[in-house]
Amino acid sequence: MKGISSISHIALITLQGSGLVGVPGIAGRLFTSLAQAGVNVIIITQGSSEHSISFAVQPASASKAKRSVEREFEFEMRQRLIESVKVEEDLAAIAIIGENMRYRPGIAGRLFQALGKNGVNVVAIAQGSSELNISVVINRADEGKALNAIHEAFFLSDTQELHLFMIGVGLIGTTLIKQIKAQAPFLKEKRAMEIKIVGLANSKKMYFEENGIDLDNWQELLQASDTASDVAGFVQRMKQLNLSNTIFVDNTANAKVADYYEDILNASISISTPNKIGTSSSYLQYQRLKTISERKGVLFMYETNVGAGLPVISTLNDLINSGDRIIRIEGILSGSLSFIFNSFAEGRRFSDIVKEAMSLGYTEPDPRIDLNGVDVRRKLLILARETGLALDAADVVIEPILPEACQQAISVDELLEEIVLADSFFESKRAAAAKAGKVLRMVAKLENAQASISLQAVDQSHPFAALSGSDNMIVFTTERYKDRPLVVRGPGAGAEVTAAGVFAEIIKIGNFLS
Amino acid sequence: MKGISSISHIALITLQGSGLVGVPGIAGRLFTSLAQAGVNVIIITQGSSEHSISFAVQPASASKAKRSVEREFEFEMRQRLIESVKVEEDLAAIAIIGENMRYRPGIAGRLFQALGKNGVNVVAIAQGSSELNISVVINRADEGKALNAIHEAFFLSDTQELHLFMIGVGLIGTTLIKQIKAQAPFLKEKRAMEIKIVGLANSKKMYFEENGIDLDNWQELLQASDTASDVAGFVQRMKQLNLSNTIFVDNTANAKVADYYEDILNASISISTPNKIGTSSSYLQYQRLKTISERKGVLFMYETNVGAGLPVISTLNDLINSGDRIIRIEGILSGSLSFIFNSFAEGRRFSDIVKEAMSLGYTEPDPRIDLNGVDVRRKLLILARETGLALDAADVVIEPILPEACQQAISVDELLEEIVLADSFFESKRAAAAKAGKVLRMVAKLENAQASISLQAVDQSHPFAALSGSDNMIVFTTERYKDRPLVVRGPGAGAEVTAAGVFAEIIKIGNFLS
Repeated sequence: MKGISSISHIALITLQGSGLVGVPGIAGRLFTSLAQAGVNVIIITQGSSEHSISFAVQPASASKAKRSVEREFEFEMRQRLIESVKVEEDLAAIAIIGENMRYRPGIAGRLFQALGKNGVNVVAIAQGSSELNISVVINRADEGKALNAIHEAFFLSDTQELHLFMIGVGLIGTTLIKQIKAQAPFLKEKRAMEIKIVGLANSKKMYFEENGIDLDNWQELLQASDTASDVAGFVQRMKQLNLSNTIFVDNTANAKVADYYEDILNASISISTPNKIGTSSSYLQYQRLKTISERKGVLFMYETNVGAGLPVISTLNDLINSGDRIIRIEGILSGSLSFIFNSFAEGRRFSDIVKEAMSLGYTEPDPRIDLNGVDVRRKLLILARETGLALDAADVVIEPILPEACQQAISVDELLEEIVLADSFFESKRAAAAKAGKVLRMVAKLENAQASISLQAVDQSHPFAALSGSDNMIVFTTERYKDRPLVVRGPGAGAEVTAAGVFAEIIKIGNFLS
Repeated sequence: MKGISSISHIALITLQGSGLVGVPGIAGRLFTSLAQAGVNVIIITQGSSEHSISFAVQPASASKAKRSVEREFEFEMRQRLIESVKVEEDLAAIAIIGENMRYRPGIAGRLFQALGKNGVNVVAIAQGSSELNISVVINRADEGKALNAIHEAFFLSDTQELHLFMIGVGLIGTTLIKQIKAQAPFLKEKRAMEIKIVGLANSKKMYFEENGIDLDNWQELLQASDTASDVAGFVQRMKQLNLSNTIFVDNTANAKVADYYEDILNASISISTPNKIGTSSSYLQYQRLKTISERKGVLFMYETNVGAGLPVISTLNDLINSGDRIIRIEGILSGSLSFIFNSFAEGRRFSDIVKEAMSLGYTEPDPRIDLNGVDVRRKLLILARETGLALDAADVVIEPILPEACQQAISVDELLEEIVLADSFFESKRAAAAKAGKVLRMVAKLENAQASISLQAVDQSHPFAALSGSDNMIVFTTERYKDRPLVVRGPGAGAEVTAAGVFAEIIKIGNFLS
């Protein structure tokens, strides 16, 4: 592979018609007449069906060429043997030039993959047996994107540029940007990859810089932007910029942003997001997004929906794809609930532990949100759907752990008073479990197509018993991991590991696009 | 996409020369002279460099066409303006036919990916703007393979056929075949995938069946084969059969088979194997295999080298690729050693536990092989290399746990007597650890570029402390998982989970090829 050349402006002329088949001499007459008219032909391509022949010329010669063809084939056109002479303008021609290209299976694959993954339409192709040249005709508007994509696909020493468009710069978004900035030298040196953040948006403003926003002062640039934030406008600008290796990152928890996933995937743009809304709302939406990404050949990634950066969804998919059958999935999927029940040992009051969790920032301001399992429900729903079950939120059975008085409390202070009153209730549960050699854990379970979340007494031998801190733990019991399950454990929340999980997916998408 | 058509026999003629550029009329004269000679032109392609033009004809017309060209361009050829008229035979032309193909970015990508991944050389391409036809000229010998590959790439309702060639039908191989047979209906129905085992070999015989060996009586067929087993011959036949989606599986532990990986990867054939020899012998060999598979765009997969079906190597690679920095990897990578030390509690004698492990079949016949950590060394070496360290076996420091007298024992009986004599030695270690609130674990560790295997006293809070049974456990401490590590746990050996791990990789390769 020696180089890439492009001709930024060409016109493509196509003759089409059944009469082209088996009438010897059409090609001869065609090119002789063009030569006589002084038209230089740059590219010629005629496929084996012989129903059509296309050739490229300088735009300035297009009209002359067309007239020449119509004159030469006036008879055939009247006889409808040639149905049409089509002129297409606003095209460009890109050629990759090398040696021995025909002896390298995969060159054409790599070329057209690079184009296809970036949504570049291929208008015409010519590759002859000179071994020197593959020519591709594309839309003029895609020339820049195509050249970049091809350059990166073939010149391994060249850095692959990923163009990120990120909505949401709260805790996770800010941490992700920090990580990207810190990793930049490593990525460039060791992975020949460069991540440019081209678009940023928070709830107030949005800002774009085609060459990549300066990560040393992105906050100021965003704040000083005079463009008000608007999801539709953000997505439109992203599509309009038409950059190679475009990746959309949604760091929000907004339904409004998730509503645009379909539009984005349809534009051949891959997505990575910790936002659970798109995957855990209606099953219909979940299914549409999966279908579209598959059909368009782009990636819709959401590992961080469950267990932050832990390999949960990918492991689940590997088990399923390899033909294993999921018998049971059990998860402790909430850091706050993990901490609360891991800490709930003899001598400690339940209310004290809840207060400690609140002060450590593990829970929402109103801890009922955690204790009622709403967030866990979304995560369990996503896991269930990944196994192929068409469940909706209402199908997830949650056994509430808080007594009614707690649920009815009007303020958080009142809630905490009620939890203190419930201490003996929780203590008796704990003691009963301990007597049987068990501990209490808040378990999300999927089994026999049923999804449930409840407080369980688990045996000391269960992997959950050894859980500590605020770790998540997911236990896969399958046909092959029947007696000894497959267990993944680690922090399941937190800005660093969540941002890192998104970062990992950005790089996977980058590798996929390369 | 409406169909695929192929012309099994064509010849391609190519004119090449600097004189072709900018001389209007060459194409006209060429095709007029061919028409006058009664030669029908099937495909025409001329790239934008204009240095060459290729056209396809019926083989029977090839000589006539060549003479016609040489006559027409006698002057230019004498002037070296046209350097050559090349005729290539033994070619075929395949056309994919559809509607609106130019509006579907990715069609060309998918087509050429399918060809490239199966090692099909692309000799010439023509796609015009009729939107109806992409024509590809390939070697005649690849026609069957190419048609299959394209069919599968485009007709999603079509089942993708994977063609497996498997050396080694011991415990793992037999289990894998059993799993493949059991999963066949599911794979066909739910994944549109069919796995055909085309070649099988044990140490005595080998057997091939292009349409897939009957999995109901493969043992009899193999035994009755009259072809003696021979690795070189097996690989040669696999390459010769030239089937689409060819996958090589090595279920042996032989260096001889691993020696052929380079040859196999070079032939654009992907590999999945639990055999640790190829990845844990010389670093040079490891690096060559990684480089070749990358260059050829095929997959070299060996997840089951470490932890059988547990997501270890893939998780490690995800961490590294996402820019995380590995601080420490700690693993309990041997089921027998896991069992032995998990069981080593107060009141139990070390020698009794070793005998129990032997009777349960967890250890090699001579348990020194397990206790000396040789197998663990290979696994740790592989993990170290995945992090980018150029280590060799000698770089892995093993602190032997058995006293010298045990090492010197001549027979297993003598060994067991010596282990009994060492009971108090082990008991004092255990008790000392227990006094400090710790337990003994045989830990493989990678930290600060140093790999070591030793008996460690680990704190009760360490994930290793809760290990039970004969599970493996791998603990990743990284920049992002610093205070709370990422832990994977589960059975790390056994025919079912190992075969399943290979099965998962076969399917991943199938998806990669599709």
